[in-house]
Amino acid sequence: MSTPAPTDLASLRAALEADPDLIALREVLRHHLAEDPQGEDPGHDEAHCMRVALWTLRLAPEVPARLAIAAALLHDVVNLPKDDPARHEASTRSAKVARAALEERGFDAADVTLVCDAIRDHSFSRGATPATALGRALQDADRLEALGALGLCRTLSTGARMGARYFDPADPWAARRELDDRAFTVDHFFTKLLALPETMLTERGREEGRKRAAFLRAFLGQLGEELGALPPL
Amino acid sequence: MSTPAPTDLASLRAALEADPDLIALREVLRHHLAEDPQGEDPGHDEAHCMRVALWTLRLAPEVPARLAIAAALLHDVVNLPKDDPARHEASTRSAKVARAALEERGFDAADVTLVCDAIRDHSFSRGATPATALGRALQDADRLEALGALGLCRTLSTGARMGARYFDPADPWAARRELDDRAFTVDHFFTKLLALPETMLTERGREEGRKRAAFLRAFLGQLGEELGALPPL
Repeated sequence: MSTPAPTDLASLRAALEADPDLIALREVLRHHLAEDPQGEDPGHDEAHCMRVALWTLRLAPEVPARLAIAAALLHDVVNLPKDDPARHEASTRSAKVARAALEERGFDAADVTLVCDAIRDHSFSRGATPATALGRALQDADRLEALGALGLCRTLSTGARMGARYFDPADPWAARRELDDRAFTVDHFFTKLLALPETMLTERGREEGRKRAAFLRAFLGQLGEELGALPPL
Repeated sequence: MSTPAPTDLASLRAALEADPDLIALREVLRHHLAEDPQGEDPGHDEAHCMRVALWTLRLAPEVPARLAIAAALLHDVVNLPKDDPARHEASTRSAKVARAALEERGFDAADVTLVCDAIRDHSFSRGATPATALGRALQDADRLEALGALGLCRTLSTGARMGARYFDPADPWAARRELDDRAFTVDHFFTKLLALPETMLTERGREEGRKRAAFLRAFLGQLGEELGALPPL
C-alpha cells in the first residue's frame, strides 16, 4: 500500500488516517503517552510527532512516506526525563517498542530494520550518526523542534519543570563562570541549541535550522536589552 | 537621606547597598522568598524586583529614588499562585507587610502611605488605577515584565507549572473555539499580554510596552511558520 506524500499537517493527518497500519502505530504512541508516569510532556506529545513526521518527509522525499511517518510516530515512544540516568537508552527502547509494533502489523523485515535503526539513532544524547536517508532526515527533523519558537517553548518549559532559573542575574551570559544549563535555562542556548544547525545532516535541515537559530538569537538579544546587558552573539 | 537616581542595574544595586533602610527592606523580601511554600518562582524573585525598581525610577523620575526602590522591592512580597482563589488579595497583603517594614525603619507617615498605596494598586488582577506618579510607574514597570523576552520566559514557565499545553494543535489560534489560557499557554497572549501596552499609564511605559509586545508578535509569527498556520496578527 502506498501513501501519497503529504505537504502540510492537514494532508499528513489525512494520509495517516487513510492507512490502517499507521492508525495502529498512532494507537501504540497514544497508549504510551497515556501511561507516561511523568504526565503529559508537551515537548514529546503527538503534535510533536506529527511535526517531526512532516519534516522527515520534507528532508527525505525519496523515502516511502508511510515509513517516514511510522518512524516519526514512534521515535520518542519511550520518553525518559532529561535528568533520568537511563535517558541515553530512550531511543534504543523506543526502537524495541517500534519493532514489536511494526512486526505485529506485518511490515516486511527490511522496512522494520530501516525504521527501527532510524529511531535508535535519532537521539541527541546517544550521539550516533544515522546510516540511511530516513535516519538522517528523522534526526534533523527532531533537532529542528529544539530550535525556533517551538524550541523556545520546549526549553523554557523544561527549565521550569527542572526548577532552573531563567538566567544568572549576576552574570546572565556566563562571562565569569562555567555554563550550567541545569541551574540556568538561558545557558542551554550556549551548551547545545545554537550549535545544533551545524550538526544537521541534510542540506535543507541545516538551512531551516539556521533560520530557527536566528530566531533564538533574536530572543537572546531582546532579553539582553531588557536586562541591560547584551549577549555575546 | 537621599539616594542618587540610578540609571542601570549596577548603579541601582550600589544605591540600594548604600542605604541601610533599603538593605533592611531587601532582607524582608528575601525572608519572604525563602519562606515561600511554592519554592522559588523566577517570575517573582529578587531579580524581578530589581528590574521593576529600575523601570519605576525611569518612569517616575520626579519621585524620590529610595521610595521607588522600596515600593519595587516589596510590591510582590506576598506572592500567591496564579490559580489561588485569594490571588487578587496578594497586593493588599503585600502592602500590609510593606507598611510594617517601612514603619519599623522609621519612614515618615506620608512616605509609608505613598509606597503602600502604590503596592496595593499595582496588580493586574486587582484592576485598580493608581492615583500617584509612583503608583502609575510601579504598575507600568511591573507590566513591562509581562512582555518581551522576559514576559515570554514567565508566560511559558507559568504555563508549564500549571500543566497547560503550549497551544491547541487542532486550532492554535482559536479560530473555532473560545480562548482558554489555562489549557493553552499561547492563548494567554490574546487574553492578556498583547493588550497590556494600551493599559499603560505613562508615556514611556506605553512606548516600551509596544516594543516588547512587538517581540511577542514576532514569536507568534515564528511559531505560526513552524506550525504551518500563521497567527491572526
